[in-house]
Amino acid sequence: MTTPLTIPTLSDIKKAHEVIKPYARLTPVLRSEHVNKRTKADVFFKCENFQKVGAFKFRGASNAVLTLSDEEAQKGVATHSSGNHAQALALAAKIKGVPAYVVMPDNAPKVKVEAVKGYGAEITFCESNLESRESTLEKVVARTGAVIIHPYNDPRIVAGQGTAALELLETNPDLDIILTPVGGGGLLSGTVLAAKSIKPKIQVIGAEPEQADDAYKSFKAGKLIPAYSTNTIADGLRTSLGALPFSIIKTHVDDIATVSESSIIEAMRYIWERMNIIIEPSCAVPVAAVFEGKVDVAGKKIGIIITGGNVDLGNLPW
Amino acid sequence: MTTPLTIPTLSDIKKAHEVIKPYARLTPVLRSEHVNKRTKADVFFKCENFQKVGAFKFRGASNAVLTLSDEEAQKGVATHSSGNHAQALALAAKIKGVPAYVVMPDNAPKVKVEAVKGYGAEITFCESNLESRESTLEKVVARTGAVIIHPYNDPRIVAGQGTAALELLETNPDLDIILTPVGGGGLLSGTVLAAKSIKPKIQVIGAEPEQADDAYKSFKAGKLIPAYSTNTIADGLRTSLGALPFSIIKTHVDDIATVSESSIIEAMRYIWERMNIIIEPSCAVPVAAVFEGKVDVAGKKIGIIITGGNVDLGNLPW
Repeated sequence: MTTPLTIPTLSDIKKAHEVIKPYARLTPVLRSEHVNKRTKADVFFKCENFQKVGAFKFRGASNAVLTLSDEEAQKGVATHSSGNHAQALALAAKIKGVPAYVVMPDNAPKVKVEAVKGYGAEITFCESNLESRESTLEKVVARTGAVIIHPYNDPRIVAGQGTAALELLETNPDLDIILTPVGGGGLLSGTVLAAKSIKPKIQVIGAEPEQADDAYKSFKAGKLIPAYSTNTIADGLRTSLGALPFSIIKTHVDDIATVSESSIIEAMRYIWERMNIIIEPSCAVPVAAVFEGKVDVAGKKIGIIITGGNVDLGNLPW
Repeated sequence: MTTPLTIPTLSDIKKAHEVIKPYARLTPVLRSEHVNKRTKADVFFKCENFQKVGAFKFRGASNAVLTLSDEEAQKGVATHSSGNHAQALALAAKIKGVPAYVVMPDNAPKVKVEAVKGYGAEITFCESNLESRESTLEKVVARTGAVIIHPYNDPRIVAGQGTAALELLETNPDLDIILTPVGGGGLLSGTVLAAKSIKPKIQVIGAEPEQADDAYKSFKAGKLIPAYSTNTIADGLRTSLGALPFSIIKTHVDDIATVSESSIIEAMRYIWERMNIIIEPSCAVPVAAVFEGKVDVAGKKIGIIITGGNVDLGNLPW
């Protein structure tokens, strides 16, 4: 089965919201005086680190799996993922009652690997590059007959990820800017579709590590430039931008900011210490962009989607 | 000025709620499938680690300071505290526009000391025992003329701490049990007054480290037995139970459970990993009591007040 790479509409995102609502959490929006003082802005954190499986990825994966027909889903679902999509797909498959097959890079954080196993998925390890991920996944699918649910290059995933911004704008309709990290682009593209359909004047900005800046380069060049070496602590953002997300991002997103590794770690620790929430390095990236002054936020209302909190506590970067 | 040690009523707690509402956060209630599976219960975490200053202590301190007359407050407020009450009093004094003088034990976590300084309070260090705390505080008050706001042995504090349970029972009226840690007893006594006034059949249970079990011993003996050596990781619970809280606890609380140091650390790490929230060792104590089976929770709806999240990230117990 192949799904045409059509661009989802606000109606698709609203339908996705109805599909996932019984299973996904309505995550809280938190604030911090420390952050507001530091940024001179009013910042609202949509806490997807409290989502099922600890990441927004459950939104897209559950929308994709739960909208499969029983016939389509019977041989299971498969994917490659550095971690959060893997967990999300495993849990969604469990809810649907079908097997899940997951290809993971051999440098994926241990806590993510354990969690995927915990949801009952079968794991196949591969090297940490797109080629190895894709060829390994092909073999798994040839053996099992499972349906591939791509982590981001899929309109059902994009629509599902857009539901976080939908909820954020329901509780905070007066935001001026929404920031998200960008890896494969599923969250950023879903966010910009939802946000600009609801509020055309809102700005939507992506944030990316300097060490994995393929989305930044692609956005500036107007054409897809793949990631090569992506040696960033933000493990969720090591993947290359997908074609479908890019087609949405290049048209609708206002800007993409990049940040250094040290500022990612500093922002991550700051949020842990001041907000008492555990965020993984990937979602410290938009926070770092704001802290570094890469985005002009003074006096504005800023939404940041905190994408996940799956961190190996035995291996912290400080 | 001395305040008579009268026992607050539900009406006092509701009044305190009105006083602090413009300044305190309405903290979220979070859940976790992992915790529910492990405990065979339905557990609701009232997240006071997201309260101002990162702890429930802001509720009591702000009620006490904001209900002082301008005349009473003019020379400032003073207290001794291992950390969270100190921060809370410092912020409440800042809101009121008066000076704050804080006596802290010299083994208080660095992050707490820094935070108290950050709110503009003047710190005087002392040894880590009640005698040194109290004699040092006396000297500070003799010098400054500030009003002492005791961390727990004060009806305004007890009433303020009770507002967390008030909010929890507003959103979750069908709870069977509420658990809180017990150190000085302000939170446990405020919680039991609020909870049993609203819902007489609810059980309220305190949890305490085995290494600082003066509340347990006092509760079983029916008379106040002070803490001597309290060498527990749960720094917020090293203090001795106060006379006012004990008079409430001995009459109304259903039980006090004690837990080992290793189970406190295990519960703390479990909550960090599975819920992506940062909780300090003190609030892992009731979680550990549930995990260890010290409280019979199977099939019940359990509220746990997560008291704070002020941890030194450079000095974690794993």
